[in-house]
Amino acid sequence: MGLVVQKYGGSSVADAEGIKRVAKRIVEAKKNGHQVVVVVSAMGDTTDELIDLAEQVSPMPAGREFDMLLTAGERISMALLAMAIKNLGHAAQSFTGSQAGVITDAVHGKARIIDVTPGRIQQSVDSGNIAIVAGFQGVSQDSKDITTLGRGGSDTTAVALAAALNAEVCEIYTDVDGVFTADPRVVKKARKIDWISFEDMLELAASGSKVLLHRCVEYARRYNIPIHVRSSFSGLRGTWVSNEPQGDQPMEHAIISGVAHDTSEAKVTVVGVPDKPGEAATIFRAISDAEINIDMIVQNVSAASTGLTDISFTLPKAEGRKAIEALEKTKARVGFDSLRYDDQIAKISLVGAGMKTNPGVTATFFEALSNAGVNIELISTSEIRISVVTRADDVNEAVRAVHSAFGLDSESDEAVVYGGTGR
Amino acid sequence: MGLVVQKYGGSSVADAEGIKRVAKRIVEAKKNGHQVVVVVSAMGDTTDELIDLAEQVSPMPAGREFDMLLTAGERISMALLAMAIKNLGHAAQSFTGSQAGVITDAVHGKARIIDVTPGRIQQSVDSGNIAIVAGFQGVSQDSKDITTLGRGGSDTTAVALAAALNAEVCEIYTDVDGVFTADPRVVKKARKIDWISFEDMLELAASGSKVLLHRCVEYARRYNIPIHVRSSFSGLRGTWVSNEPQGDQPMEHAIISGVAHDTSEAKVTVVGVPDKPGEAATIFRAISDAEINIDMIVQNVSAASTGLTDISFTLPKAEGRKAIEALEKTKARVGFDSLRYDDQIAKISLVGAGMKTNPGVTATFFEALSNAGVNIELISTSEIRISVVTRADDVNEAVRAVHSAFGLDSESDEAVVYGGTGR
Repeated sequence: MGLVVQKYGGSSVADAEGIKRVAKRIVEAKKNGHQVVVVVSAMGDTTDELIDLAEQVSPMPAGREFDMLLTAGERISMALLAMAIKNLGHAAQSFTGSQAGVITDAVHGKARIIDVTPGRIQQSVDSGNIAIVAGFQGVSQDSKDITTLGRGGSDTTAVALAAALNAEVCEIYTDVDGVFTADPRVVKKARKIDWISFEDMLELAASGSKVLLHRCVEYARRYNIPIHVRSSFSGLRGTWVSNEPQGDQPMEHAIISGVAHDTSEAKVTVVGVPDKPGEAATIFRAISDAEINIDMIVQNVSAASTGLTDISFTLPKAEGRKAIEALEKTKARVGFDSLRYDDQIAKISLVGAGMKTNPGVTATFFEALSNAGVNIELISTSEIRISVVTRADDVNEAVRAVHSAFGLDSESDEAVVYGGTGR
Repeated sequence: MGLVVQKYGGSSVADAEGIKRVAKRIVEAKKNGHQVVVVVSAMGDTTDELIDLAEQVSPMPAGREFDMLLTAGERISMALLAMAIKNLGHAAQSFTGSQAGVITDAVHGKARIIDVTPGRIQQSVDSGNIAIVAGFQGVSQDSKDITTLGRGGSDTTAVALAAALNAEVCEIYTDVDGVFTADPRVVKKARKIDWISFEDMLELAASGSKVLLHRCVEYARRYNIPIHVRSSFSGLRGTWVSNEPQGDQPMEHAIISGVAHDTSEAKVTVVGVPDKPGEAATIFRAISDAEINIDMIVQNVSAASTGLTDISFTLPKAEGRKAIEALEKTKARVGFDSLRYDDQIAKISLVGAGMKTNPGVTATFFEALSNAGVNIELISTSEIRISVVTRADDVNEAVRAVHSAFGLDSESDEAVVYGGTGR
């Protein structure tokens, strides 16, 4: 049997009991004959407490020092986890991101992994140790400064290590049972997905599903590392994410993988844009220069009578003010009429590779929304996804209606624990 | 002006307010034209909290992982301190022990510094930064594992960096005003010492004075780095420790530097040891093999009538049981009568290079004790120190009597804050 990388989030190691429970699970994998490399996040609220301390000493903490501070969190959890494993009679060594060879660029707070040189980790597991690695952190290639990978960083660390170590699988342990066909807090009849393709998972992640972050799935797809998302509490089989189903996984792709929703975005509409070349470019260059990431962009044909069109886009609510300010400055140059800002919206997305070959999907989707009395404000599609923007108030009903319309409801109501995945 | 190394203990950076106060002090030194390197301990109770966590997951935490855990403490304080300095408008960078080039042996929990290669620190201060370095920690030369230096480790880090960087002075900031002629908690009239030689300071540290640890002073003497012990709260001038007085320091050595006491030791007496060659060697080899550090050793001439002698020694109370067990095993071979163990003792020491040339010192010392009604149980002397063992109950009275007899009492009662120095 080969090497397995396991990742445990902050909620799984929130206290001494959690650490001991996780240690037992790790030792099980070792006893089953695997070489085991574990990536661990900071304990429970540690990161928030450190951020709070930083804010007390400085209103604008600097990136380099802030990263140095935050990485203390994993240092604590990984050392404790190694101790707990040793206490069960198995050899374990903990390693910082730097020691594990996680090399990044120098963008503090959201560094990107540019190389992984896991020589020490390989050596450690070859000597019979369970290697415990700090998630979320690395060391910059040039300056040798400590960096952090930003949101979802520990998952990315795990996948990157799995790729560098040629692991059989990267197991992401979390506080939910896997990836569901919809958010179980909204849809009681949501079903756990047994297997999902990288592509569908990427679309779900981009559309609001929070179990795995886009970045981590992207990395796994690039290096073809199967991910197994599962609960650190239940021991049940979770969701496999890979190129193709493996073993006893269902061989036939489901038409629809799931329904995702996202209420974190706002909608900006630029009203009355002259319909001539270069206007959209001017608008989105202004947005890009302000370093704002946007999501959907929708422009319809212009009204023949006026030669004017409206351009709408969605973006994180937190960046709304910045976007409006940036656009106001282009008003004279572009010559649009006005700006509208709306943060009471929700995005609902239907994801599934099967929709490519099933022409009825779009119609069923819109009918389901219509039957539920939900009005559609924007529509955007990709090859394997349809997204609509609706009123925020309608989101739960809309998701349930669509989930049901595509036959995704499970037979029985499942009781599911659901929460964040930590970092 | 040259480079200054400042060290701040855990009580000086116990919370965000403390960190901000310390940051201001550091910036003052920078404004005065110095290059500044700061060594910082973990915040207040952080270390105890981490130890508590470790005990919850494992009754016998392993050295390597325990060191990894504890070093998270300085990581937090140093990053916060750098942020606080930046917030005052000055450039600062924090460095782990490893980044600062503190190379140690591989003895986890009490590693010894074997080299300091402060290239990154020098570069950082040459670029105009204030460099903040984690105290108490290093990296092992061969295995590249994180190590900790044990008790007083941060002071040693500071002195070692000061030596490697050729600093003008190593300032040790603590929660007392300096080194006193006696423990101010016991002797209200104890005086702050303006200057003391390395030799006297070493004897005081070995005799129970807790302001500076022996190891740190030893390092400073070897590399001839002046130490300035002072309060991080008051801003007053503290105590200079160096080879010779500097500047406006008193040119004439005091006869007596101070009176130290120590109630952490116990006394073991091996009764009825045959007075023949090799017996003492057998006894102390047994103690040494059990890795017990002993302090005073006293053997008087044997009684002519029996040919038997008694050998007494003192050792840390915590090691008493181990010592008795080790000695019991030698009983048949050595042929002694019995063992006596007494942990209700105190050691009182008078320290001062002046006693070498002032023959009356010993007599005055014993008279003072006698006048105070204090019985002497053991006596041991070095060139610049006299130590006696008395009943623990007598210690405060004994120290006050001796302090007064040598004219060390200050004119007025000083109000002094006194506590530990952290690690």
